[in-house]
Formats: sequence, C-alpha cells, structure tokens
Amino acid sequence: MAETFSPAERAVLYRVLEGRRDVRQFLPDSVPATALMRILGAAHHAPSVGLMQPWNFIVIRSGATKAQVKALFETENARAAANYTGARATLYRSLKLEGITDAPVNLCVTCDRTRSGPAVLGRNTIVDTDLYSTCCAVQNLWLAARVEGLGVGWVSILEYGELRPLLGIPDHVLPVAYLCLGYPQEFLDEPELAQRGWAARLPVEQVIFDERWGSPTTP
Amino acid sequence: MAETFSPAERAVLYRVLEGRRDVRQFLPDSVPATALMRILGAAHHAPSVGLMQPWNFIVIRSGATKAQVKALFETENARAAANYTGARATLYRSLKLEGITDAPVNLCVTCDRTRSGPAVLGRNTIVDTDLYSTCCAVQNLWLAARVEGLGVGWVSILEYGELRPLLGIPDHVLPVAYLCLGYPQEFLDEPELAQRGWAARLPVEQVIFDERWGSPTTP
Repeated sequence: MAETFSPAERAVLYRVLEGRRDVRQFLPDSVPATALMRILGAAHHAPSVGLMQPWNFIVIRSGATKAQVKALFETENARAAANYTGARATLYRSLKLEGITDAPVNLCVTCDRTRSGPAVLGRNTIVDTDLYSTCCAVQNLWLAARVEGLGVGWVSILEYGELRPLLGIPDHVLPVAYLCLGYPQEFLDEPELAQRGWAARLPVEQVIFDERWGSPTTP
Repeated sequence: MAETFSPAERAVLYRVLEGRRDVRQFLPDSVPATALMRILGAAHHAPSVGLMQPWNFIVIRSGATKAQVKALFETENARAAANYTGARATLYRSLKLEGITDAPVNLCVTCDRTRSGPAVLGRNTIVDTDLYSTCCAVQNLWLAARVEGLGVGWVSILEYGELRPLLGIPDHVLPVAYLCLGYPQEFLDEPELAQRGWAARLPVEQVIFDERWGSPTTP
C-alpha cells in the first residue's frame, strides 16, 4: 500500500482528533445501522498484540438493560461524590457524567483474555497488552463516530463485577469500556471538564521529555 | 463546534484507520521535528479520565539508549520464543518483531498514576482507566504518524522493571508503550502476521453481539 495523504487529507485527521469529545447529552434520534457497522468496523481495524483481536462489542438498545446499568452507575457515583467536599462537591454533583438512558445505543467493549490460546505473540512479558489493544479499538470507534456526526461518552463509574452478570459476560472476559452512542446535542469546543473549570489542559511541551524522564525538550 | 465531515472527508479517516500498520522495517531518514510535534500533539488530544492527561512522551534518539533497549528485547524475546515448537517456532524466529535500532526515533509513552492527585473524576471504581487513556493517546499518535507517512511499531516484548532505570522513570509511572517511529520501507496491504500466516483476521460479525454476550447480531 503506497498510499499517501495530501496536506488537505492530513488536515482532516487532525480536525477529527481535535473535534472528538466525550458526549453526555444526546438527541433521541436513532443511529443508522450502516453507520454503526462502519464504526464497529473501524474499531475492528485497531492494532492488536499478536493479531489477537481480543475485543467484542455488545450492542445494547434495550431500555430495561440501560435502566439497570444506570442504577449501577448511580450507586458508584454516590460513592465517588463522597471524595469531594465544599465547592468541589457542589461542582461534581452538577456535572452530567453519563447519557446511558438518553443515548439510543449503548456499547460494551470487552476483552477476552483467553483469545488465541495461551501463547500470544508479543504478550509474553506484558500480559495487559490485550487490554491495551482493546483501548486502541475504543479510540478508533470514537474517531469514526465523530466523522459520522455521532457522539460517544465513556462511562467509567461502573463496577465490572456487577456489569458482568447483567450482560452475561463470562469471568475470563473483562468489560473494558461502557460507551453511550448517539447524535449529540452539540460538540463542545473544549472538553466539558475544562469548560466547567474542573480541570485544565496541560501545555503539550510539559508532557514531552528528551531522552530520559524529566529532561525538558529543547524546542 | 458544529463542524461536520463530508462523505469525502469521512472516507479519509477510514483510509487512515485501514492503512495503519505495525511497522518493523524502517528507512534511516530522520523524522522532521515539525511532524514529530504534530504527532505528539495528536496524542495529547486523546480523551482521558477526568481530563487527567496522565501521559508523558520520552523522545529517544540516542544510539546508546536504543542499543540497551534492544538488549532488553533480545532477552525477553528468547524467553518468548521458547513458547513455540516445530514449524511455529521456526516461523516465530523468522519474524522481525522490532525496529528499535533501525528507527531514527524511539518513543516511550508512560502513564503517571498519581497525576491530578488522589481523587480523579471517573477513576474511583476502575483504577486502570488512566492506563486506558494512555492507550487512546498511543492510538491517536499512530494514526497521526500514518498521515505523515511515518510508521510506528509497538515493542511489547520488554520488561517494565528493566526499562524504568534505563530511562530514569520513577516507580509511580508505568511505561505503557515503547514505540519505534520512522519512515517505513513500505506500508503492507495486510498486517504482517496475517500475510505470514501467523494469525488470521476475524470476520467482524463474529465479534459483535446483540444485547448480551454470545447473542449473534442479526444483520
């Protein structure tokens, strides 16, 4: 594949990466099956250790299932809110952190830790590389959704142990990401947590080191 | 941001996702600093739990460091090769699994597990969400490299405990990905492991479930 990308095509990718958002406010409009399949195909094109492809995608549209997942979220979120006091607690409670029942589609992205048998090329020393591959698939999915005009929100305030029986997920499979998918009310210019003053973006220079940990880069 | 993507722009993203490869054969040509900064900026635009941005990028060009990392790889790879026998062992040994000393740039992508203090929004129940965010950053980096005409190879046959002192990485920081970056000899049409008969791509329908684990999707 000698395929190259023109400056204009290159700019498209950077626009996608910069315009992707964690979305928690969804419109009720349904997600076309063709768009959903393109998005899942994008995820399936992610890199994986030893070509293990350890992921599965459970597509959830059932209102009953969403309501049960929402209840799990509420329990965990009450525990999480207790970490904060004063103004920070008030701000925490004012943030909408999920769109589980609003989003027309929920997706559970899992990692089958036994796929491809006991010896996986490249997964001898670092066994979590299967989880890492699954996260690469999530990011592909998120970017594909963005070009389809669809928003994705990752709900991480959930207990795996409680999610598993609800979706019939066996013990050797880890639910890595629970995602809400649908048309967003809007794509914000900045991450909501930055806009609302919860956290700030770090300058990129601050996260780059030269040769060794802690050595600032010379521009 | 009301930005939408035209069908042609959408197709660009899918071409990038499908044309990305794990690259192990590099040309000696150096990586322009401007392209490297765009790629690292792309990584820094990844989603992160609670806007934690737990990643750092150590840019390695030193031949001495690369040689030391290569030695670590060789030790681990000898251990890994012992998992296979017969024809599979011969095939394993014939695969080039890294381009550490060939690639002009090596990148170590790390996750600082203490960044943003003890309570991180969205990281109360699932503590590994910081690692998951770091993997999303790796995938952004990989895709940005692809549009720049640059190849990335992820070397996972390395022991974290040995990599840490070599790069001066403190104990609370996990090296998540060790990447080789440079202009590739070529971008293959298919993953090398598929081309060489090591593993096969799964049909996408096989990894999609409807509502619950194990229920095939109806097309």
